[in-house]
Amino acid sequence: VTIHIINPNSSMSVTHGIDRAVDGLRASSMVPIQCHSLEGAPKGIESQAHIESVVLPLLEKARDLDRQDEASAFIVACFSDPGLALLREQIAKPVLGIAESAVLTAMTLGQRFGIVSILSASVSRHMRYLGAMGVMDRLAADLPLELTVAQLSEEKTTMARLSHVARQLREARGADVIILGCAGMAPYRRALEQEIGIPVVDPCQAAAAMAIGRVAYSRMNALDGEI
Amino acid sequence: VTIHIINPNSSMSVTHGIDRAVDGLRASSMVPIQCHSLEGAPKGIESQAHIESVVLPLLEKARDLDRQDEASAFIVACFSDPGLALLREQIAKPVLGIAESAVLTAMTLGQRFGIVSILSASVSRHMRYLGAMGVMDRLAADLPLELTVAQLSEEKTTMARLSHVARQLREARGADVIILGCAGMAPYRRALEQEIGIPVVDPCQAAAAMAIGRVAYSRMNALDGEI
Amino acid sequence: VTIHIINPNSSMSVTHGIDRAVDGLRASSMVPIQCHSLEGAPKGIESQAHIESVVLPLLEKARDLDRQDEASAFIVACFSDPGLALLREQIAKPVLGIAESAVLTAMTLGQRFGIVSILSASVSRHMRYLGAMGVMDRLAADLPLELTVAQLSEEKTTMARLSHVARQLREARGADVIILGCAGMAPYRRALEQEIGIPVVDPCQAAAAMAIGRVAYSRMNALDGEI
Amino acid sequence: VTIHIINPNSSMSVTHGIDRAVDGLRASSMVPIQCHSLEGAPKGIESQAHIESVVLPLLEKARDLDRQDEASAFIVACFSDPGLALLREQIAKPVLGIAESAVLTAMTLGQRFGIVSILSASVSRHMRYLGAMGVMDRLAADLPLELTVAQLSEEKTTMARLSHVARQLREARGADVIILGCAGMAPYRRALEQEIGIPVVDPCQAAAAMAIGRVAYSRMNALDGEI
Amino acid sequence: VTIHIINPNSSMSVTHGIDRAVDGLRASSMVPIQCHSLEGAPKGIESQAHIESVVLPLLEKARDLDRQDEASAFIVACFSDPGLALLREQIAKPVLGIAESAVLTAMTLGQRFGIVSILSASVSRHMRYLGAMGVMDRLAADLPLELTVAQLSEEKTTMARLSHVARQLREARGADVIILGCAGMAPYRRALEQEIGIPVVDPCQAAAAMAIGRVAYSRMNALDGEI
Amino acid sequence: VTIHIINPNSSMSVTHGIDRAVDGLRASSMVPIQCHSLEGAPKGIESQAHIESVVLPLLEKARDLDRQDEASAFIVACFSDPGLALLREQIAKPVLGIAESAVLTAMTLGQRFGIVSILSASVSRHMRYLGAMGVMDRLAADLPLELTVAQLSEEKTTMARLSHVARQLREARGADVIILGCAGMAPYRRALEQEIGIPVVDPCQAAAAMAIGRVAYSRMNALDGEI
Repeated sequence: VTIHIINPNSSMSVTHGIDRAVDGLRASSMVPIQCHSLEGAPKGIESQAHIESVVLPLLEKARDLDRQDEASAFIVACFSDPGLALLREQIAKPVLGIAESAVLTAMTLGQRFGIVSILSASVSRHMRYLGAMGVMDRLAADLPLELTVAQLSEEKTTMARLSHVARQLREARGADVIILGCAGMAPYRRALEQEIGIPVVDPCQAAAAMAIGRVAYSRMNALDGEI
Repeated sequence: VTIHIINPNSSMSVTHGIDRAVDGLRASSMVPIQCHSLEGAPKGIESQAHIESVVLPLLEKARDLDRQDEASAFIVACFSDPGLALLREQIAKPVLGIAESAVLTAMTLGQRFGIVSILSASVSRHMRYLGAMGVMDRLAADLPLELTVAQLSEEKTTMARLSHVARQLREARGADVIILGCAGMAPYRRALEQEIGIPVVDPCQAAAAMAIGRVAYSRMNALDGEI
Repeated sequence: VTIHIINPNSSMSVTHGIDRAVDGLRASSMVPIQCHSLEGAPKGIESQAHIESVVLPLLEKARDLDRQDEASAFIVACFSDPGLALLREQIAKPVLGIAESAVLTAMTLGQRFGIVSILSASVSRHMRYLGAMGVMDRLAADLPLELTVAQLSEEKTTMARLSHVARQLREARGADVIILGCAGMAPYRRALEQEIGIPVVDPCQAAAAMAIGRVAYSRMNALDGEI
Repeated sequence: VTIHIINPNSSMSVTHGIDRAVDGLRASSMVPIQCHSLEGAPKGIESQAHIESVVLPLLEKARDLDRQDEASAFIVACFSDPGLALLREQIAKPVLGIAESAVLTAMTLGQRFGIVSILSASVSRHMRYLGAMGVMDRLAADLPLELTVAQLSEEKTTMARLSHVARQLREARGADVIILGCAGMAPYRRALEQEIGIPVVDPCQAAAAMAIGRVAYSRMNALDGEI
Repeated sequence: VTIHIINPNSSMSVTHGIDRAVDGLRASSMVPIQCHSLEGAPKGIESQAHIESVVLPLLEKARDLDRQDEASAFIVACFSDPGLALLREQIAKPVLGIAESAVLTAMTLGQRFGIVSILSASVSRHMRYLGAMGVMDRLAADLPLELTVAQLSEEKTTMARLSHVARQLREARGADVIILGCAGMAPYRRALEQEIGIPVVDPCQAAAAMAIGRVAYSRMNALDGEI
Repeated sequence: VTIHIINPNSSMSVTHGIDRAVDGLRASSMVPIQCHSLEGAPKGIESQAHIESVVLPLLEKARDLDRQDEASAFIVACFSDPGLALLREQIAKPVLGIAESAVLTAMTLGQRFGIVSILSASVSRHMRYLGAMGVMDRLAADLPLELTVAQLSEEKTTMARLSHVARQLREARGADVIILGCAGMAPYRRALEQEIGIPVVDPCQAAAAMAIGRVAYSRMNALDGEI
C-alpha cells in the first residue's frame, strides 16, 4: 500500500525534486509516498512525441508497481497529464494527474487561476487540456517563462522571471491564484507566494495532497464493501 | 486539531447521518473529524431565506470551534455551500463546501456529471452556482426527485425514485458520474452505484476526503514555514 | 408607490451621490424614486464580510419600506448585488441589482463590456458573479483603479486614472462599452464617455431606468389581472 | 416623441395583436407608444429570406417615423430581431429588439429560460442569435410548437400545445422562466403562467417595458447635456 | 503524391468500407486516395487502451507511407482521432482526423450537430474531445445506438435504430445536422438523410473532401515558395 | 461548373487581389475559379449599413451566375460573411464565407487563433459572429491594425504594423495561428508567416481550398444519387 508518483521522464534529478516537494506530506499520509522515474523515457517531456512515447510505458510501470506492492493510488507527475485517461480506464485505483489536480485545487483557492509555463510551445497543449476539462472560464491566462535550460539552472534568473510573469498574471490578467505549470518548480513556490501575495500552487504537492484524501476515500469504500 | 463538519441546519438526525457517512474516513485521517449542527438554524435548508439566515451563524460557529480546539479544516455540509466565500475570506484555514467538493471530485471520475436534487426549486440555485464555478460544460443535467418529506422517509420509494432519476441522467442525458445533490443521501450511495454501474459521489464523503488531503497540505506548508 | 433604491452601506454621502445620479430620471417616472442608506451597515462594502452582514438587514429595510409606503420596485445599489436572490424570493415586487442591470444594459450598447472596478479585491467577486450570470463571453476585462480612499476624493487623480483604465479596456482588451463598477462614480460618467468615445454605463442609472420599465410592466400585469 | 414599435411584416392583424399586448403599458409611458406594420413586407417572417428582405425597409420606415414625429425609441417586433445591428448603427436613438429584450428580462426572472418557438425551422436561427448574445449557458431549451397556421388559429389547440411544450421545458429541461418566441402569443401569456407556475415573458411587452426605461434614460442624458 | 487514409484498426472489412465510402471523391482529387489498415492493431477501437496502442504505430505507418510514395495528406480514420496531435507535430503535411473534420463540416451545414455513437462508452470520450475543440455550444447531443456487434451486422435493425436515434436528436434535442460517430456507417448515410430531412455527415467522406481542399492549399503554398 | 467567389464590394482592385490570392489553387481545382465584384456595392465594407446593403444583391448575383453557368460552389469574400445564412437557405449549392472558412481552417492548425483586423470598429462585429459560431474559447484575441486607407497603401508601413500586431497576438495573448481578418491582405501572408513562425491564414485562400473539397463532396453525392 503506497501512493506511487511516477515522473514520466527519466531524469533522476526531476524525480528527486518531486520527492523533496512532497516530503512534507508524508507525515500526514497513512501510506508511504514513493517517487519513480520512468526508465527509458526522454530526459524531459517537451513535445507531443515525448508525451505519446511515455503513455504505454507509464501503464506498464504502474502495473509493475501495483504487482510488487499493492498500490493505493497513482500520480502522473508531468503537467501534460500523459496517459491519465488510459490509467484510469485500466487500473481500478485512484489515478491523479498533476495538472488536473493543480487546477481543481486552484479552483478552491481563487476565482481565476494563472498558469506559469516554461515554454510557449506547451501553452497550446494546456489550452486543449483546459478546454477538455471545461474550465476555460476560470483561466486568467497561461504565460510562458521562455527560459532556456541553461537559464533555468540559474536560481536568480529563474526567480526573477517567475516573479515577473506571476505579477503580469495578477496585475494585467486578473489572476488571484497562480499554478506552477511544470513538475520542477516547487522550490520557488513559497518565495513566489510571499512576493506576490496570492496563493501559488505546486502541482505535485496539490496532487499528492489530493491523493491522500482519495486513498482515505477508497479505503472507506473498501471497508464499506466488506460489511 | 480537528476537521469540523458543520451541518448548517439544526436537524440532529441530518448531522448524525453525515457523521455516519464520513465515519469510514476517520481511520485515514490524522486528525479527528467532528460533525456539528447549527443551533437555531432552520430544520432544513430549502430556500434562499434559509441560506442567508445561516451564513453569519456559520461563521460564528466556525470561530467558536476554532477557539475551543484549533481547527485543521472546515466543511460546510449543505449542497448550496452557504457562506463558503465568507468563511474562506475570514478564516485562514482550509474551508471546503460539499457541493464544490462533489463537483471537483466528479470531474476526476467522469466527463459529465449528473446531479440528483431533492426539489426542482433547488435546481436553479445549483445552476447559478455551477455557472459561478465555470463548469457548466461538464454538467449533463440536474434532475429533481420531487419527493415530499413523507416520501423521503420511505426507503423503498426513495431508492426507486433515485434509481429512476439516475438512470435518466445516464441514459438520456449522457452522465457518466452521478452526484447526490444533498447532504443526506449517503445511505443510498453504494446501492445506487451498483445498480447503475457508474460512480456515485456523496458530497459529504467527497468533501471530507478532500479535507484530509488539504489538512496534509497545510501541515506541510506550516512545517515548510518553520524551516 | 415608490421605487426604493437602497444603498446597502451607511454612508449618507454615497446615498446622496446615488440620489443625484438618478435625479434626471425622476421626471420620467410615474412613481417617486427614493434613496435610502442602510443604518448600522458598514461605511462601504469592500469584503465578503461586509456583503453578508447587510443581506438580512436589507430584507428588513425593504419590508419596512414596503409597509410604510407600498413599494413599486426595489434596487440594491451596490455593485456586488448583495441579497438580490433573497429579495427576489421574499418580495413579490420587481427587485433589481445595479451590477446585473448595468451588465444587461451594456449588452444592448456594445458587444464586449469592460468593467472599471475600484480595487482588485472586488474583481474576483465580479468574475464569480458574471459566471453565475453566464455572460463571461461578453466580458472584455475587469480592471481595477487601485486608488486609495484618499486618492478617490481628488477629482483630477480619479478622472485621470478612470480615463487610463477605460482606455486600456477599449484599446488593449477590445471593450466597446464601459461599466463603472461601483455605485459612486456617476459624476464622472459623461466626461469619461466623451473622452473615450464609447458608451459608459453608470450602474445606478441603468438600474433606475430599468426599474421604471419594470414598474410599467407590473402595473400592466396588475391591470390585466383585474379584468 | 413616441416609442415606435415596428412589426416587420405586413400583417395588420399581427400589428393589432402587438398593439393590444402593449396597451396596458401606455398608462405608464411618458410618451405615446405606436405600432406599425411594414408595408410591402411578407405576411410573416418565417425564413432568412424574409428577414433579409425587411432589413433595409425597416431602416427606411424608422427614418420616416423619426422625421414625421421625433422618435424616442424604436422596437423591432419580430423574434429574430431583424436589422437590430443596422438600426443601432444608423439611428442615434434607443433601439430594442423583442428577442434580446425578452432574454434580458428573463435573465432577471429565473436562472434558465426556455423558449417556445412556432416552428423548428426558427430554432436554429435562435441558437445562432443566443450564441452571438453569449447567453447559451442560461438557455434550458428551445422547443417548437410545430403547429400549422390553421391550427394556430384554433385557440384550444394552441393553448393545449403551448401548455404541453412549456411543461416539458420546465420539467424535463429545467426551465424556471418561459419566453414566448414569437410576436403574436401575448393573449396566452397570463393563462400559461398561471397554469405552469413560473414566469412567462411576452417579448413585445418585455421590449416595450424596457423601452419606457430607456426613454427615461436618454431624457436624463439629454437634460444632463444641456447643463 | 497520395492522400493516405489510415484506418487505425486491423479490420480489412472496415478499411474496405472506408474505401467504398470515399470512392466517389476520387474523380475530384488531383492525387490518388488510398486506404490502409494498421497491421497489428486491434480489430476495432473501443477503449482508451485501444487508442493509445495505435498512436505510435500510426506515426510509423504514416512515415513509411511518406517514404514509399511522398504523401500529400494523411487522414486518421477513427472517430476518436487517435494520434492527431502527434502526427501534426511530427509530419510537415496536412493531417486531418475524421471526427474533427466531421464537426467542422457540420458547423457549415447547421447550427447544432447531433452525434450518433455506437456505444455510450465512447460518448464521454467524444465530450472530452469536443471540449478540447471548444465547440460544446454547437453540440445538440451525442446519443448511442447501443447495438451489439451481432446486431450491427443486421442491416434492418441498424437502420431502424439509426433512424430512431437521429430522430430523437432532431426532435427532442434540436439537432439540425447529424454526424455519424464512427468510421463504418457510410452505407446508411444517404438513406438516413432522406428519411430525417436534415444533412447527415459521414466523417470519412467529410475528412477526405477536406483533404482534397487541403492538398490544393499546400500545393499553392509550395508553388508560391518556389517563386 | 465553376467556383464563384463574389467580392461583395465594387472595388475591382480588391477583386483582382482576391483573384491573385487564389490563383495558385486553380491548378488543383476540377472546376474553374472565378472572382466577381458586386456592381453597385460600396467600395469597401466597413459598416453594418454596407453589410446589409449587399445582402440581397449578393443573392441576385449568385442566382445570375448560377443561371449563366451552373455553379459548383459560392464563396462570399468579405470577412463579415454578409448574406451567408441567406445564400445557404436559398441556393442548394455549397456556400462558404471567408471568415467562417478561415476560422475552421485555423482550428486545424493551432489551438488558439488570433485575428488581425483593419479597424477596431469591425472587432465588435467579429466578436458577435464568433459567438454565433460558438468558438470564443478558441479565440486568443482580435486586434486592429488601425491604419488609415492612405497608410494601407504603403507596403512597408502595413507590413511593420501587421508584424507588430501579429507578434502581440502570439506573445501577449497566446495565439498559435493567425487569421488575416480582411479579404485583401493575402500579399503579406507568406512574409508574415516566415517572420513570426506560426501559421498565417488568408481567409480567401482558406475558403477557396475548402470549396474545392466541398465541390468534390457534392459531386460524389450527385453520383451517388444517380446510382
